Amino acid sequence: MSIRSATHLLISCPDRPGIVAAVSRFLFEHGANIVEADQYATQAEGGTFYMRMAFQAANVGRDELERGFSADVAEPLGMEWRLAYPDEPRRIAVLVSREEHCLLDLLWRARRGDFDGEIVRVISNHADHAADVEAFGVPYAHIPVRDGGTPESEMLELLAGHVELVVLARYMRILSSEFLAAVGVPLINIHHSFLPAFPGAEPYARAAARGVKIIGATAHYVTEELDEGPIIEQDVARVSHRHTADELAAIGRDIERTVLARAVQWHLQDRVIVHENRTVVF
Amino acid sequence: MSIRSATHLLISCPDRPGIVAAVSRFLFEHGANIVEADQYATQAEGGTFYMRMAFQAANVGRDELERGFSADVAEPLGMEWRLAYPDEPRRIAVLVSREEHCLLDLLWRARRGDFDGEIVRVISNHADHAADVEAFGVPYAHIPVRDGGTPESEMLELLAGHVELVVLARYMRILSSEFLAAVGVPLINIHHSFLPAFPGAEPYARAAARGVKIIGATAHYVTEELDEGPIIEQDVARVSHRHTADELAAIGRDIERTVLARAVQWHLQDRVIVHENRTVVF
Amino acid sequence: MSIRSATHLLISCPDRPGIVAAVSRFLFEHGANIVEADQYATQAEGGTFYMRMAFQAANVGRDELERGFSADVAEPLGMEWRLAYPDEPRRIAVLVSREEHCLLDLLWRARRGDFDGEIVRVISNHADHAADVEAFGVPYAHIPVRDGGTPESEMLELLAGHVELVVLARYMRILSSEFLAAVGVPLINIHHSFLPAFPGAEPYARAAARGVKIIGATAHYVTEELDEGPIIEQDVARVSHRHTADELAAIGRDIERTVLARAVQWHLQDRVIVHENRTVVF
Amino acid sequence: MSIRSATHLLISCPDRPGIVAAVSRFLFEHGANIVEADQYATQAEGGTFYMRMAFQAANVGRDELERGFSADVAEPLGMEWRLAYPDEPRRIAVLVSREEHCLLDLLWRARRGDFDGEIVRVISNHADHAADVEAFGVPYAHIPVRDGGTPESEMLELLAGHVELVVLARYMRILSSEFLAAVGVPLINIHHSFLPAFPGAEPYARAAARGVKIIGATAHYVTEELDEGPIIEQDVARVSHRHTADELAAIGRDIERTVLARAVQWHLQDRVIVHENRTVVF
Repeated sequence: MSIRSATHLLISCPDRPGIVAAVSRFLFEHGANIVEADQYATQAEGGTFYMRMAFQAANVGRDELERGFSADVAEPLGMEWRLAYPDEPRRIAVLVSREEHCLLDLLWRARRGDFDGEIVRVISNHADHAADVEAFGVPYAHIPVRDGGTPESEMLELLAGHVELVVLARYMRILSSEFLAAVGVPLINIHHSFLPAFPGAEPYARAAARGVKIIGATAHYVTEELDEGPIIEQDVARVSHRHTADELAAIGRDIERTVLARAVQWHLQDRVIVHENRTVVF
Repeated sequence: MSIRSATHLLISCPDRPGIVAAVSRFLFEHGANIVEADQYATQAEGGTFYMRMAFQAANVGRDELERGFSADVAEPLGMEWRLAYPDEPRRIAVLVSREEHCLLDLLWRARRGDFDGEIVRVISNHADHAADVEAFGVPYAHIPVRDGGTPESEMLELLAGHVELVVLARYMRILSSEFLAAVGVPLINIHHSFLPAFPGAEPYARAAARGVKIIGATAHYVTEELDEGPIIEQDVARVSHRHTADELAAIGRDIERTVLARAVQWHLQDRVIVHENRTVVF
Repeated sequence: MSIRSATHLLISCPDRPGIVAAVSRFLFEHGANIVEADQYATQAEGGTFYMRMAFQAANVGRDELERGFSADVAEPLGMEWRLAYPDEPRRIAVLVSREEHCLLDLLWRARRGDFDGEIVRVISNHADHAADVEAFGVPYAHIPVRDGGTPESEMLELLAGHVELVVLARYMRILSSEFLAAVGVPLINIHHSFLPAFPGAEPYARAAARGVKIIGATAHYVTEELDEGPIIEQDVARVSHRHTADELAAIGRDIERTVLARAVQWHLQDRVIVHENRTVVF
Repeated sequence: MSIRSATHLLISCPDRPGIVAAVSRFLFEHGANIVEADQYATQAEGGTFYMRMAFQAANVGRDELERGFSADVAEPLGMEWRLAYPDEPRRIAVLVSREEHCLLDLLWRARRGDFDGEIVRVISNHADHAADVEAFGVPYAHIPVRDGGTPESEMLELLAGHVELVVLARYMRILSSEFLAAVGVPLINIHHSFLPAFPGAEPYARAAARGVKIIGATAHYVTEELDEGPIIEQDVARVSHRHTADELAAIGRDIERTVLARAVQWHLQDRVIVHENRTVVF
């Protein structure tokens, strides 16, 4: 599961006949064996077409493959596309505040080899988790809040150019749009409610107050609009009037860590394409 | 399941020691056998206490039982309470618009004897379902919208005093607060989203647009605030980017009818107590 | 959902490079637009390859398309394959005993147009459901058990050559292997447990006795081995020690009808390929 | 959740009128405030009655309370009963083999204070987990298999009299009935299938071979009959033909650890009563 051995091709373009044929013919003629293929068209005709293919063993080099694909397939069909190679680094940074359940779960899964990537850095506004993190051999940076603000430039120094993914594993500070732009890689957040229900602060307390019978968690890409980014994965659990807000939070922790881990791994497997604030998850 | 054979006692009062003892002693001394008992206190101390007991075979008449309970137990402990007897009628009216899946499901279940109650009337602003409903031996009233408005007085004539419960089984018209007051019995509505996500119109289209990975349905008591009443039951199903709004609606139909049926039966079994816009479901 | 407008191509063959390319090129060159495509290989290399494609608007007739596909693609690659056309009949017979919840649900969905097929016949060993079925305009045959046996030859007269699918919607008699051979079309059964737990008779009573915390239902193709056929779909619900066997059966009815409906529709959409007593469900 | 502050009274006896009244009156007269109460009768009349009450602040000592309860309530009503006090130790030993996901999850939860008990000992037939466990300050005993057998006497020395609960957290050796008798406390095991489906070895491989669409895990008390003990909790996840046996195992790990943690905490909260190889979970 964690051995990345195939190259991934991700495509989006205006839908029209012949796309699958053109792409698969090109790959076959370059010696590649397609091992996974998924397509999705937003409507029966005239919509947008999305495709992910995983293939092995092309018989030409990357440059030649990319030049050829661009000239022979992508340009004629008006494609946006990218190729992700098995040997490219997939370095992950985790940002975390007080709650450690998602952090520990990610570290443990990474150690097991469950992820197609490596956690290389943990940053927190609290000092609490240093020993836990360092036991996994991962460097821990404690960057406390100063003057009421998050020292984003210090964080950027550790992140920009050093990682390919940032995971907010119950990180409870808001990041500026300048930070999001400067970090230059996708960020995945776990929100502790079933969005769009209960965006913002204290979702479990509000779920208890509203008397819902099911709670959930949502993993999504971070955008400038808080809790409004494209949803990657969600899951839920049944609750009842007997559960206090604290007990909802305890039940929620089990959902949060599982939902976040799925979203991170799907991202690392290049399974997620963003389309108008929604995700296509192949 | 559908043979109502026990009397139900429902209580709410300020929490304090001795409530269970006082009630159970009273029942025992009046020859009653407690067959079900559930309690809930909103907090460890000083909160509100809720209790439901089902008992059989008291050795005194109703009047004597109620007078005794009031004087010996309820007044000293500051209780709100009510007794629901097995032989009281539980007549149900169903209001429905175009979509018939919840209506038919309720009729099937009622005929099978799944409900502790009887559907005695169906009202719709459309004529479509007359044959279906009449095949179950239930009278069908087609009361079309007139002059842009719902003829609430015509509906009230068929409902007030004639039923103990009104079920809005995908009834898509808003009922006035005057109507709600005049009908004089609880109303249960099925909303086709996982409230508080997507209140109001077109929830499936909005769920598709937001890209959620799970959809749901919510059965709740009707209050003056649209989609804000106390939630009785909810359930969900997984969906993906591949599902159109129409397909979400099709998946949702299976959730809606099951959630609504559970809420109706729990209400008929006197399992639901409303507490500050939330429900305690025993 | 219920308007079948695409042709379906189903393929299984030894896995090797170039299969997707060969098939999609052939379709493109014959004017077809691929609107859905799914693949599955049983292992990374050297396994069996399965594919389903849905396409529209080939520019040649069926005979020419099939001859061409056979000669140019299927034979060189050693394929088993079939084409299913939108205008082919999809006639369904339903067999049922006493319990009517699956039967009614299928009839209602068929009337809504949820199925890519038509229910043309209901057969039962009981007379009970005649009025219900005939209200949907479907002929009902009551073929009672005689001399302790199921009159299979009478049933065969109504089925063989007249339907493309037989659904056992809580049909509680065992069918002989001679009958299964003679009927000549697939049969889908709903078993009221989460197979392989509780095969055979009285699964709800046995689930209650074993004290399981979750019950389920299983839709599967019928084979000679009772309850051992390829599983198409399963689903579950939580239960507790409080539920009697009868209450488990009531909860189970909601699972059974939904699981069976999904399995029937997936079959009608040519989404299910059987592979060594397992199903690939695209 | 993890601060045990109430005394728990657990009762089973032949059902008859007046049990709730007798018990609650006794507690009230001894100054106790009932904060939780649950009852269950196996049948409407003539069955077995089970009850759990949590109460605070009796005004007499333990000995007097127990003597009084025995004489005034338990003996007249033929009860089996026990009282569990908040300050009694709840020491837990965890047995584990190679797979560490359940072990780590239990340690994380215990450190967070999620359990009404303390993990005081980990024993494994492998040396692998020593560093992980000792980082939590918990002693780790590596007791390797010798001469093909499990050195049960060495294990017994560390367990009997030293812990109140033994958790088999993916411990893959069979324990003898002599060991079970000698250890003298309950043992909870996690089985990696949805029992009674796939008892015994290699359940994920067998689930893949059978083509089930849902997998699960089961926490149960250990009895002499392998995988036949009373089920405490189960949960499931959807899978498909695409998942290999290894992927089923990865999905299963998330279910196993959550199901096991729930079962352990319910046991520590005295919520579980065993009744004829089934559990009543209040």
